[in-house]
Amino acid sequence: MNYVLGIDGGGSKTLCILMDENREIRGRGYGGCSNYHLVGEQKAFLAMETALEKATENLNKIEIKALGIGLAGVSRPQDFQVIQNWVKELQSSEKLPIKWSLLSGNIVISHDALIALVGGAAKAIGILVNAGTGSIIFGRNKRGEVKRVGGWGHLLGDEGSAYTIAIRGMKAALKGFDGSGEKTLLSAYFQQHLSLASLEDLVKTIYQKEWGVSEIASLAPLIDQVAVAGDLAAQKILEQTVNELVEGTKIVKKTLFSESEIIEIVTSGSVWQSQYPIRARFQALLEQHSPQIRVIQPRHEPAYGAALLALQTFNPLA
Amino acid sequence: MNYVLGIDGGGSKTLCILMDENREIRGRGYGGCSNYHLVGEQKAFLAMETALEKATENLNKIEIKALGIGLAGVSRPQDFQVIQNWVKELQSSEKLPIKWSLLSGNIVISHDALIALVGGAAKAIGILVNAGTGSIIFGRNKRGEVKRVGGWGHLLGDEGSAYTIAIRGMKAALKGFDGSGEKTLLSAYFQQHLSLASLEDLVKTIYQKEWGVSEIASLAPLIDQVAVAGDLAAQKILEQTVNELVEGTKIVKKTLFSESEIIEIVTSGSVWQSQYPIRARFQALLEQHSPQIRVIQPRHEPAYGAALLALQTFNPLA
Repeated sequence: MNYVLGIDGGGSKTLCILMDENREIRGRGYGGCSNYHLVGEQKAFLAMETALEKATENLNKIEIKALGIGLAGVSRPQDFQVIQNWVKELQSSEKLPIKWSLLSGNIVISHDALIALVGGAAKAIGILVNAGTGSIIFGRNKRGEVKRVGGWGHLLGDEGSAYTIAIRGMKAALKGFDGSGEKTLLSAYFQQHLSLASLEDLVKTIYQKEWGVSEIASLAPLIDQVAVAGDLAAQKILEQTVNELVEGTKIVKKTLFSESEIIEIVTSGSVWQSQYPIRARFQALLEQHSPQIRVIQPRHEPAYGAALLALQTFNPLA
Repeated sequence: MNYVLGIDGGGSKTLCILMDENREIRGRGYGGCSNYHLVGEQKAFLAMETALEKATENLNKIEIKALGIGLAGVSRPQDFQVIQNWVKELQSSEKLPIKWSLLSGNIVISHDALIALVGGAAKAIGILVNAGTGSIIFGRNKRGEVKRVGGWGHLLGDEGSAYTIAIRGMKAALKGFDGSGEKTLLSAYFQQHLSLASLEDLVKTIYQKEWGVSEIASLAPLIDQVAVAGDLAAQKILEQTVNELVEGTKIVKKTLFSESEIIEIVTSGSVWQSQYPIRARFQALLEQHSPQIRVIQPRHEPAYGAALLALQTFNPLA
């Protein structure tokens, strides 16, 4: 039996999946953050090694024939060089109860959007529409061509993300408060939710407590709640989110696919969990644009996608 | 002769002006940052003391009859308490060659927008439209009523600010680049200006070098330059800026002033220095809205306004 490893290295955790050639998962293991831009090379490597160790523990010396790694924040040649060095180190690690038998063609290093697409679609073709704390729209066609829209981070353009929804919600609340925008329930909801004496104190809460991107993004469900309660300003924000995700998806589709192809659109991320019908609106607008589109939930997680990419190196995917 | 002190305490420097009862400036002195949220209480106090010391050096023991202080980031009751304690400490400071003769009614502590308005208009009536790194629109009428629009900081709504212009410029550049927005010269300009191999590296430059608000704001002149070169996307950003500043000003005007009153609008901040006719467009749109409006350059600096507020405590302004 041939085995491969798939690794999803993110900012908060690292997941490693051990998969056999029949796509059966034979082991799973977690490690900490493996984004070395955030925690430094040593810690990041250790997180990855730990994930591998846990995914392969209690196994006899099985033979690993391929390795797929997807990492957030990996795009420059320098980044790939770092990861390639890690792969060498992993191959000589004494902590791992595995036997390596990798050719250079059996090592796939990619960014996090590709493994999320491949895991979500269970193949390396389609469009990923990720709308979580951040957002990105990423597609790949059967010729291997790729196209990306957005994903420029919270400051430069994560349209569709929970962060952007939260920021727009707070802006709308303050505009309702100072009279430069329409009156909105958001003002009262933010004041209450954050226990503010006055909405003006929102500024102090956000800046002086030095809220990070994920703390701010965590306020997005409040806008959802207010939209469902019938508030127009909140609904407008979520409709704008839907439109931005739809427009981005159309561009990726047009760049990579023909009119007649059936295309799967994988939706991933917390924004799709809203009470407000973001997903239904997204689907309706896209189907109206092109009846060949199928909006689907992710079939598998990104680490599974990384393992599929590894498998593909000696066993081309259908 | 009666003397007063006016202090403008900001995030980068503190300016103190010594003024006599005829509004003549008799001394000026600078200190460092006196925003204690940024540098702590001790350093902030020292910056203020230094500014006073320099403004009053080489003088015989003159008598200070009133004190006006305008500070960025001062709004909560706790903040005012801190500053009141400082005023007490200043009165017993042995470094200062002055005699204090202050009643509590001769001490004015306010935020930075009020002193900028009073300095700019040379009276405590009118509307300040500040568009620098940040932005705020602030008005005061003859009854002493005030109204503020915006000024919620870079994350929550500094429409009209250099920061917002720069962020929108970078977003437009990236959207032009990934095809989700119109093609724009901004893409090439940012790439060249920041010496990027590819525009995608903009993300790394901004996030990994941890650019702060003022570094980002310092990119606004690039959008100005591209707009003047005829680029539609850049022009759209600056027109949006003008519109936001106009709308905010209208709200403040409507809240505080009657239709027939002649109102002075003081424009302050770097955004007004653009090559693109931001100021002329702003003026035209407002005059079209109300012929009673006069858009003016600041007559004096904010510290001068702080001194006028001090003077006003025993010598009401016209």
